[in-house]
Amino acid sequence: MEDLVGLREGSSGSPVALQELWGPCPRAQRRIRDFLERVKKQLFRVGEDWYFLVGLGVLMAIISFAMNFVVSRVVHAHMWLYREIGDNHLLRYLSWTVYPIAMVSFSTGFSQSITPSSGGSGVPEMMVILSGVILEDYLDIKNFGAKLVGLSCTLAAGSTIFLGKVGPFIHLSCMLAAYLGRVRTSAVGEYENKIKQNELLVAAAAVGVATVFGAPFSGVLFSIEVMSSHFAVWDYWRGFFSAICGAFMFRLLAVFNSEQETIASLFKTRFRVDIPFDLPEIFFFVLLGFVCGIMSCAYIFCHRQYVLFLQRNWITKKLLATDKPLYSALVALVLASITYPHSLGRFMASRLSMNLYFNSLLDNRSWALLSRNSSPEWPQEVDPQNLWFEWYHPQFTIFGTLCFFLAMKFWMVILATTIPMPAGYFMPVFIYGAAIGRIFGEILATIFPEGIKTDDGVINVIIPGAYALAGAAAFSGGVTHTISTALLAFELTGQFVHVLPVLMAVLMANAVAQKCQPSFYENIIIAKKLPYLPRVRGRKLNSYQVTAELFMNPNITTLAKDSTLDEVVKIVTSTEAVEYPLVESEESQLLVGMIHRAHLLPLLQTEPATQGSKHQWRLHEVLTGGCPVEPLTLQLSPQTSLHQVHHLFEILKMERILVTSMGRVVGFISWVELKKAIAELANPPAPK
Amino acid sequence: MEDLVGLREGSSGSPVALQELWGPCPRAQRRIRDFLERVKKQLFRVGEDWYFLVGLGVLMAIISFAMNFVVSRVVHAHMWLYREIGDNHLLRYLSWTVYPIAMVSFSTGFSQSITPSSGGSGVPEMMVILSGVILEDYLDIKNFGAKLVGLSCTLAAGSTIFLGKVGPFIHLSCMLAAYLGRVRTSAVGEYENKIKQNELLVAAAAVGVATVFGAPFSGVLFSIEVMSSHFAVWDYWRGFFSAICGAFMFRLLAVFNSEQETIASLFKTRFRVDIPFDLPEIFFFVLLGFVCGIMSCAYIFCHRQYVLFLQRNWITKKLLATDKPLYSALVALVLASITYPHSLGRFMASRLSMNLYFNSLLDNRSWALLSRNSSPEWPQEVDPQNLWFEWYHPQFTIFGTLCFFLAMKFWMVILATTIPMPAGYFMPVFIYGAAIGRIFGEILATIFPEGIKTDDGVINVIIPGAYALAGAAAFSGGVTHTISTALLAFELTGQFVHVLPVLMAVLMANAVAQKCQPSFYENIIIAKKLPYLPRVRGRKLNSYQVTAELFMNPNITTLAKDSTLDEVVKIVTSTEAVEYPLVESEESQLLVGMIHRAHLLPLLQTEPATQGSKHQWRLHEVLTGGCPVEPLTLQLSPQTSLHQVHHLFEILKMERILVTSMGRVVGFISWVELKKAIAELANPPAPK
Repeated sequence: MEDLVGLREGSSGSPVALQELWGPCPRAQRRIRDFLERVKKQLFRVGEDWYFLVGLGVLMAIISFAMNFVVSRVVHAHMWLYREIGDNHLLRYLSWTVYPIAMVSFSTGFSQSITPSSGGSGVPEMMVILSGVILEDYLDIKNFGAKLVGLSCTLAAGSTIFLGKVGPFIHLSCMLAAYLGRVRTSAVGEYENKIKQNELLVAAAAVGVATVFGAPFSGVLFSIEVMSSHFAVWDYWRGFFSAICGAFMFRLLAVFNSEQETIASLFKTRFRVDIPFDLPEIFFFVLLGFVCGIMSCAYIFCHRQYVLFLQRNWITKKLLATDKPLYSALVALVLASITYPHSLGRFMASRLSMNLYFNSLLDNRSWALLSRNSSPEWPQEVDPQNLWFEWYHPQFTIFGTLCFFLAMKFWMVILATTIPMPAGYFMPVFIYGAAIGRIFGEILATIFPEGIKTDDGVINVIIPGAYALAGAAAFSGGVTHTISTALLAFELTGQFVHVLPVLMAVLMANAVAQKCQPSFYENIIIAKKLPYLPRVRGRKLNSYQVTAELFMNPNITTLAKDSTLDEVVKIVTSTEAVEYPLVESEESQLLVGMIHRAHLLPLLQTEPATQGSKHQWRLHEVLTGGCPVEPLTLQLSPQTSLHQVHHLFEILKMERILVTSMGRVVGFISWVELKKAIAELANPPAPK
Repeated sequence: MEDLVGLREGSSGSPVALQELWGPCPRAQRRIRDFLERVKKQLFRVGEDWYFLVGLGVLMAIISFAMNFVVSRVVHAHMWLYREIGDNHLLRYLSWTVYPIAMVSFSTGFSQSITPSSGGSGVPEMMVILSGVILEDYLDIKNFGAKLVGLSCTLAAGSTIFLGKVGPFIHLSCMLAAYLGRVRTSAVGEYENKIKQNELLVAAAAVGVATVFGAPFSGVLFSIEVMSSHFAVWDYWRGFFSAICGAFMFRLLAVFNSEQETIASLFKTRFRVDIPFDLPEIFFFVLLGFVCGIMSCAYIFCHRQYVLFLQRNWITKKLLATDKPLYSALVALVLASITYPHSLGRFMASRLSMNLYFNSLLDNRSWALLSRNSSPEWPQEVDPQNLWFEWYHPQFTIFGTLCFFLAMKFWMVILATTIPMPAGYFMPVFIYGAAIGRIFGEILATIFPEGIKTDDGVINVIIPGAYALAGAAAFSGGVTHTISTALLAFELTGQFVHVLPVLMAVLMANAVAQKCQPSFYENIIIAKKLPYLPRVRGRKLNSYQVTAELFMNPNITTLAKDSTLDEVVKIVTSTEAVEYPLVESEESQLLVGMIHRAHLLPLLQTEPATQGSKHQWRLHEVLTGGCPVEPLTLQLSPQTSLHQVHHLFEILKMERILVTSMGRVVGFISWVELKKAIAELANPPAPK
């Protein structure tokens, strides 16, 4: 063996001579080998995990693409069945409804049977994890399969169920990242492992969004805005790197699959470039943002009320506890019956898929003006060149269908989001917003058929598609409390000409929504009773005045070095803390470090009375035996302000900090205390 | 007076009756007044400073626009003079050179005579300020005028000097923000004032970029990337809000001034939308990114070397110390002589202004292919429709001119950046990068005159303008170590179709540049010897193992409560610290709080021996007299890792933290110690 190593290394001595006889140009070979060795060393240093980031991006892109591919085939099959089944209304109705019902029930049953935590979007849970809480098993790789299969079925149910894939993809991507992170050579200590894991998760969230839309910029920004309150520029770069790998791979696969000729935007728009809009239209864009803000508040409010209703009503409570697939099937039946194209579905363009919905709403022609000149027939099948035929109804007109769509989808989306299966809640909101914008734009186009400013003879017709774009960005921005939805809208369409009006609409919607309601994801966190730290906004000035001593918990159990083992056993058995602060002596309470319960227990248990006097031993005598005392890296003083404490908790992702005064332990602050203090900040308790 | 108040309030009693007699609909009036009062209260709460953000954005936009307006007039006048002066070569040469020399000397002299700190870009100083260091007077409003006038003159010197306005605008905007912040009702304490000030400054930096380019997205992101290592999402929203106000106002003014018909992008490109590029071109884009990365390293390296040369060489040293305007004039003379259009300037398109340079380079036609079919004359004046005529020379061809431009501008830009006057260093880099990309694209277009993939009969000609865009983003990204330059390129041009290739080029350039060189701004910080905290990247794993006790400074002077005043006087006079830690007793060294030197001195001075025994008094007896002891909010333990310490310093923007062990003060860590520790991390000292 040693000989072989010697040969391979070829450093000196006879093996080299041997090797020189074997290969041509031994020197050049050696040099190349050295060079490669050096490159390898440079690239694959410990701590540099760019190859993980590439792997993560590429894998997620392949998964996303494969899922799209499978789902589109299944949806095609459904459409084919629906078409070929003939004119019998009952059969048609059945073929329309049974399919999504089966898909949704299977999705619910399958995912819930494997892990209950695979349902839902996954974004709220990721928010909680990234704020420092450890949710057991939530990032376990066994969820991966359940979520993947479940999500595919959800998407295969098509636009009947009207759900997307962004949220679950963030979750999938994070699971994959956590798995890859565990595979990787683990770093030195617990603390750095946690930091590394966090870095990977932040990048993974960006990859999740980027591989769904093929949009790296908004992927990174959206995940930052939703996930964290603070971020490091270093994480942001890593996110970009990973997201671009994912987005590139995703679009590349589309080219290889001959869906597109080259890497291009998913939804191409053809808005005018020279004069995309007249100046006064800015006002209407901002107004649209205001409307979207109000609508998003209403949406969040109704969603919360409905979730509370589900939790309170005994029928639904029982159904959701024991027969989740049944609940899903019932909801799917309602949704599918309503969208049946030969009944109400006719008035809400229900034959369109999710992508076609968005595509049709971005049309830069005004349907209202088009339908004045011609009244097209309802085609037998969806006409990809004239998607607006789906929205047109001779009696209802396009205003009727759009209004009906908005009215019905409002509660249908809320209903759909309560199905306990893997599904994304962003895309429906995005499309709903586009519909709001579309109707707004169509109304404007009807009022000003020749554009707004016509005094100089040039006619700039109003483009309702631009309003649809702004509406989508504004409504989804209001619901999720983010601004980067504006960037997403541009990245999806490949045109940047409406940057100012769309951004203003999104800001307006955010201003309204953030004032009145928590974000959609925070809503779910509250409903699911997940641990969560409310935000302290800069405007809450009195958060500077409340100091730690006013809201810390002074009832802290400490272990003193000079206490007897009997006392220690009593303390450990009577409390359930994970770790105890170790103090110098009972009297002085000078903080020394932390002891983990898990380390302490064996010491107390495994040596039962080797000497009769053992229970009279002092703790410090036992500690020298091998129980590690962890040093404390950070302590607060009683004078630290609430604002600063909150800041530290958010940034350092901590769950508990000790408060010391002149070295003495005087209390601790955990999320519980902090939450209470923040709540009191908003509603100060009445002075007694 | 009281009557009047009563009348106005109209709450009860006879004044109401009076008022009711006076006005119509008194009830409605009162209700409206109440409503307005409530709205006002809602909008203008303390802590909510959105009106400052609006004001900041709008003011900066007006300033930016006004400056553009004035500068363009002055440049026009220069061009007119140059044109009208006839064919006398000497006169022409003089009119070409004297103008920029005068402008630059005046700019240097004026700004330096008012405040020496108004020279340069201002970005490095802002980086230092935002990392927590207080640079005295740097944000003083008296710099504002100096910088404003100086910058206008610099820009009026035109493309001869080849400098921009981004950096100074960030500085101007921050000065304005600091001024507005001082005007505002000041918040409660010092700590929150500092935080509020910081929030405003971060938003102001975004406004600075946004109002120069009219680009809100990249304004916010660029300022984030350049300015800080950590970022709060809350600040990011405020930045967006302010930046959009600025960008909107800036573009609105352009419309009102009839420069543009509506709010649109500054540089419009007309790239193909359907198939913007063939797939294999991605490879060339990445290669371009690599080339730009290398070039940016060379640029940063040469810049540093030249600055060092200036500091060492005794002639330049003396010149820069005493006769700054003379140095500026000499440099301007060199630059203007070279760019004189009838000599070397002919080969580097020197008649173009900065904007026209960029515009011409983005041309989507291939000049190499165009010049095959026709060889245009050099026009008497710049032809706005065919800017490429400027780049064409019958013997040199466009490759010759582009290469010459790159070779000459490389050192000319470096030379120009050393002139001690207010000037931005981003735009020249951006245009230089565009030229690199242009020549790259032209070579490709010559090699593949019919596009790369021609097997399916469709010809997709290569667009050199897209490479120019990618080159601009990649080179400027490499020089400044940012990714958001990609977004800036899209926002400037209004087209998003090349998002993936450009982003990949930028990432590649960043990977190369960040590996080899500090950023351009860090370079200046080092050259100017400003305090600065080097970054610890995630890859430096051993930063987790070095603990505070290994690099903290144990030589800390403390004041004990039980020490005599004599001792205190001795300590205070022998050291120069701004604040001293107060400990319980000489012996125990238990930390109590901090005492400011400024608070302590009057106590020691103003009571000279009222009683003979005063010098035997103990410190704590004096302290009760009125010297405030500030509580310490945060302490480190000797076991805190370097990584964590660095993290805390960066996030909390601190300059000094005390290290305590069991309540005892054992040392402190300031930037000095941290820097040394980080330096040792990279080059561990040889074990003795």
